[in-house]
Amino acid sequence: MTGNLLILTAPSGAGKTSLVHALLERDAHVRLSISYTTRAPRPGEVHGQDYHFVSVGEFMAMHADGAFLESAEVYGNHYGTSEQWIREALTTGQDVLLEIDWQGAEQVRRLFADAVGIFIVPPSLVVLQQRLQGRGQDSAEVVERRLAAAREDISHMGEFDYVIINDDFDTALADLQAVLRACRLRVNDQRARHAELFTSLS
Amino acid sequence: MTGNLLILTAPSGAGKTSLVHALLERDAHVRLSISYTTRAPRPGEVHGQDYHFVSVGEFMAMHADGAFLESAEVYGNHYGTSEQWIREALTTGQDVLLEIDWQGAEQVRRLFADAVGIFIVPPSLVVLQQRLQGRGQDSAEVVERRLAAAREDISHMGEFDYVIINDDFDTALADLQAVLRACRLRVNDQRARHAELFTSLS
Repeated sequence: MTGNLLILTAPSGAGKTSLVHALLERDAHVRLSISYTTRAPRPGEVHGQDYHFVSVGEFMAMHADGAFLESAEVYGNHYGTSEQWIREALTTGQDVLLEIDWQGAEQVRRLFADAVGIFIVPPSLVVLQQRLQGRGQDSAEVVERRLAAAREDISHMGEFDYVIINDDFDTALADLQAVLRACRLRVNDQRARHAELFTSLS
Repeated sequence: MTGNLLILTAPSGAGKTSLVHALLERDAHVRLSISYTTRAPRPGEVHGQDYHFVSVGEFMAMHADGAFLESAEVYGNHYGTSEQWIREALTTGQDVLLEIDWQGAEQVRRLFADAVGIFIVPPSLVVLQQRLQGRGQDSAEVVERRLAAAREDISHMGEFDYVIINDDFDTALADLQAVLRACRLRVNDQRARHAELFTSLS
């Protein structure tokens, strides 16, 4: 395997999804893993693009087959990451992004020791609160619950390799690109990618 | 300590020194550690800029005092890296580059577990041979000895974190800058640098 596996985790309100999409647009060698989910599509969501939308029965059959590298249940809905798809993408030298939570990250690290964990945080508590409030007309209670969840996520930051502070979008994107570029320069990657060169030099 | 310690190692002919100088010109937060040496200055070399030129007696006194993070003897000349200077630079948040060989890198890693090792290689055996020949009018025997030394260096590549292939200079420089940028995003660095933010978010 020569591709890199990057785990991207963030509390909601950190702006992770916009960063991921900007990276994908600019870098043809990166693929985003599309999760399987049993939740219903939201307006505008496309099957196979935002998620693979499957029935509970299909999800459970895949789970029983050991198809998921990591899976989670959130508010009664199931989410899972296909291990086969990831292994195939990595084998062909593509880098793979996983947008998952810290619990999923923990599961992935057990199987892919070389996976690189990137944690994205908002630039301040005030910005985080604004972003959490900004989504629709939710009650103070809902916003408060989201903030508590975000704090819980942030308490797991230490389990990640890199932390990107999403203050200025372009800076955060350049940070993400630098981490990916550095990953591609890791000694084992370079050895696999330029085997002939290193044979001739040694 | 919040600065990063980067070890740069390369066989001669890899073009390391030009990369280091280009990086230093572009990034004011990086400092190059200046080694102490007992060898005589070559024409054009400046004391305190290329090396700290010291007598054998001075060098040995520093060595006895434990002043050197790493030291080596090459062709009867002594070379050493000041530990105090590095610790002071790192403490003030500056990143420090060490241009040392693989043996020095080994010594440094024992004391600075977070040090990042970068190994620079030429793009091909032919280019390496050309670069080794290109330096003055040396005999075939001398060139052959240099090539053997380069191969010995390259055999230690696996002890480093990153490998940069110096084919196109600008690409190699951008690689080096990406590694440094990624280092600055490491979780412990970010925590130290943005302590207030993470206290407010947690």
